[in-house]
Amino acid sequence: MISVEEAVELLSVCSHCIKETEKISLMEGLGRTLAENVTAPMDQPPFPRSPLDGYAIRAEDSTGAATKSPVCLEVIGEVCAGRVFSGRVGSGQAVRIMTGAPIPAGADTVIKQENTDYGEKRVNLYESLVPYGNYCARGEDYCRGDVLLEQGTILDSAAIGTMAGAGMTVVDVYRQPRVGLISTGDEVIPPGAVWQPGKIYDSNLYLIGARLKELGLDPVWMLHCADQPEKMTELIRNKAGEVDLLVTTGGVSVGKKDIMHDVVRLLPAKKLFWKIAVKPGAPVLGAVYKDVPVICLSGNPFGAASNFELLVRPVLAAMTGNKKLEGRRVTAVFEGEFLKGGSIRRFLRGYYEDGHVQIPEEKHASGILSSLVGCNCMIDIEPDSQGLHRGDVVNVLLF
Amino acid sequence: MISVEEAVELLSVCSHCIKETEKISLMEGLGRTLAENVTAPMDQPPFPRSPLDGYAIRAEDSTGAATKSPVCLEVIGEVCAGRVFSGRVGSGQAVRIMTGAPIPAGADTVIKQENTDYGEKRVNLYESLVPYGNYCARGEDYCRGDVLLEQGTILDSAAIGTMAGAGMTVVDVYRQPRVGLISTGDEVIPPGAVWQPGKIYDSNLYLIGARLKELGLDPVWMLHCADQPEKMTELIRNKAGEVDLLVTTGGVSVGKKDIMHDVVRLLPAKKLFWKIAVKPGAPVLGAVYKDVPVICLSGNPFGAASNFELLVRPVLAAMTGNKKLEGRRVTAVFEGEFLKGGSIRRFLRGYYEDGHVQIPEEKHASGILSSLVGCNCMIDIEPDSQGLHRGDVVNVLLF
Repeated sequence: MISVEEAVELLSVCSHCIKETEKISLMEGLGRTLAENVTAPMDQPPFPRSPLDGYAIRAEDSTGAATKSPVCLEVIGEVCAGRVFSGRVGSGQAVRIMTGAPIPAGADTVIKQENTDYGEKRVNLYESLVPYGNYCARGEDYCRGDVLLEQGTILDSAAIGTMAGAGMTVVDVYRQPRVGLISTGDEVIPPGAVWQPGKIYDSNLYLIGARLKELGLDPVWMLHCADQPEKMTELIRNKAGEVDLLVTTGGVSVGKKDIMHDVVRLLPAKKLFWKIAVKPGAPVLGAVYKDVPVICLSGNPFGAASNFELLVRPVLAAMTGNKKLEGRRVTAVFEGEFLKGGSIRRFLRGYYEDGHVQIPEEKHASGILSSLVGCNCMIDIEPDSQGLHRGDVVNVLLF
Repeated sequence: MISVEEAVELLSVCSHCIKETEKISLMEGLGRTLAENVTAPMDQPPFPRSPLDGYAIRAEDSTGAATKSPVCLEVIGEVCAGRVFSGRVGSGQAVRIMTGAPIPAGADTVIKQENTDYGEKRVNLYESLVPYGNYCARGEDYCRGDVLLEQGTILDSAAIGTMAGAGMTVVDVYRQPRVGLISTGDEVIPPGAVWQPGKIYDSNLYLIGARLKELGLDPVWMLHCADQPEKMTELIRNKAGEVDLLVTTGGVSVGKKDIMHDVVRLLPAKKLFWKIAVKPGAPVLGAVYKDVPVICLSGNPFGAASNFELLVRPVLAAMTGNKKLEGRRVTAVFEGEFLKGGSIRRFLRGYYEDGHVQIPEEKHASGILSSLVGCNCMIDIEPDSQGLHRGDVVNVLLF
């Protein structure tokens, strides 16, 4: 048995970083990874802009102006946002201006209308201003040629807004990793089918598929295969070319129907490891088939869920360069009691908030999925633990 | 001017909670809110299940068994997962069993194959077992009729997996709130258009639209309107019936082109408030038109972004009952210097991690959007602040 970290290392070495890019519409780019630096095609703002409603003036003309000693200027025109005043503000002159409008040539500041008499032909100023005080300079946000967003940036809403503001409508991003899912097991039937004795409904395929969706990745397909090594081999041979990563569930233990060992031989795939020193989900199998990493998770739902976090997410992070896909580790104060010790490292589902972590009241068995609902982390319990007590500081892997 | 909290209260009172439901396919239900309790249609597991590969036996038959004093039992059959053994395990008998297979009648535990001689006709046991030790009881996870998921649950991947495991393929959820977006301003042109002097590209529509998408809500439409009160009035009259919430940007200050005041009169809409005591984005306007809350954000990008968090998200939370939409407040240690004080409460974009919060190095002006990229919170600075220093404990609103 190897450690989780060794398994991740073996898998990561075989996980090629996705270099292919695609140009997609800007709004579709949300959450995706920039494939190139985005440089500004123009200054932002593209012109000196008024930050308020008032009068564009030369600051020196307002010297000494106050409520009791107003300065009077001639109003030579008006400019609203979206328009341009073609003239020039000379000494003793003002232009009525609205927020967002270009500040006319000659003016070096804008007096707030509330500090004037709102005059139309002539205006009285009640405030003395300094040059460029109320003045959004051209290029204040960025200048043409500046790198706005670096290659590798995960596009958030502010990045989308920033690119839109620079006039862009398409974005060049790395393509998403393609992940295929196959559940195995003669006992597993699809939800909606008529139940028969000995059968269970397929929760793993939906659990893992939905988990990928939570991470922003739609599985390219979700399939099921019976416990027949030849069938599974054929399926993988046919479909592996369509994906960057294959995740299977079930068939990895030591029973007669644990077909994945045979499948690895039949494909043939290169086996990386079998079994990791962890509870639940120890009998996980890692392999590579034609450059596609294959992670064969335990059929126990929580074992599958746990190893998805521990093994699949780091591979997705390696493929995309998106560190967020790896999950974040924090420490937290344990609020509860968990009296089960053990020689093997154990991951326990939990709920983390503000530095504290709780666990569901019961039902920690690896076959039990329902108590995972609402959990947002796993507690990483070291080997040879004597259990956990309230107040213990624990390591937590956030989902 | 009223406070943020007063504005939220005024808006929330007018925000109807969405009661309409829709049945959608299970995988589409991820992130949606359950409209009814989900009760288990069957026991889970639906039969007593073997947790391992070995032999189903009566525990009492193993009494005293050890490596040096094996107990020998007759193997009367075999059962794999997905099949059912029709007979009964009697005294002195065993059934070869695989993980996940139903434990045959008569047996009350399963001995791990590694603790036997793997016998086919007869098997030697090297371990003494207790009844129900290696035995997943029928209904161990849940029993038929148990409430699996409560109405109001936000469906995460574990919930989707749990419902799939109960055989379900559709889920009854509340419909999503329908949000419409309109940006205003004669100076605003759509990304991709040819730039002309005095014009800027529309960042707000994309910023807010993408922010909604980040929260799992696609805007139903994203429109633009020129600074013409009659046109905007007509647009809202025509489109308001299609949405639960209308968000606009621009036109809310005191200038001649701040059309939203006229629009509220012309519709007519009921004005709830104008201006909140906050920087940036003070001149925000709240109204209700035909039962649809209308939130008119400032045209300054960061003002719009900030008030989206402060005002729009609580309304979405009120409409959906989804507390997560509100954003979470935490305290954090400030890592940096922000020397600008002020009499008005201020929100500062920042990056929060593990109890610490940083701010972008510069460019805090409300018209500047690019420095919001990568931020994940806002720092809530109280009125009459003298600025912030490294080590100050600050209130933070997480995005």
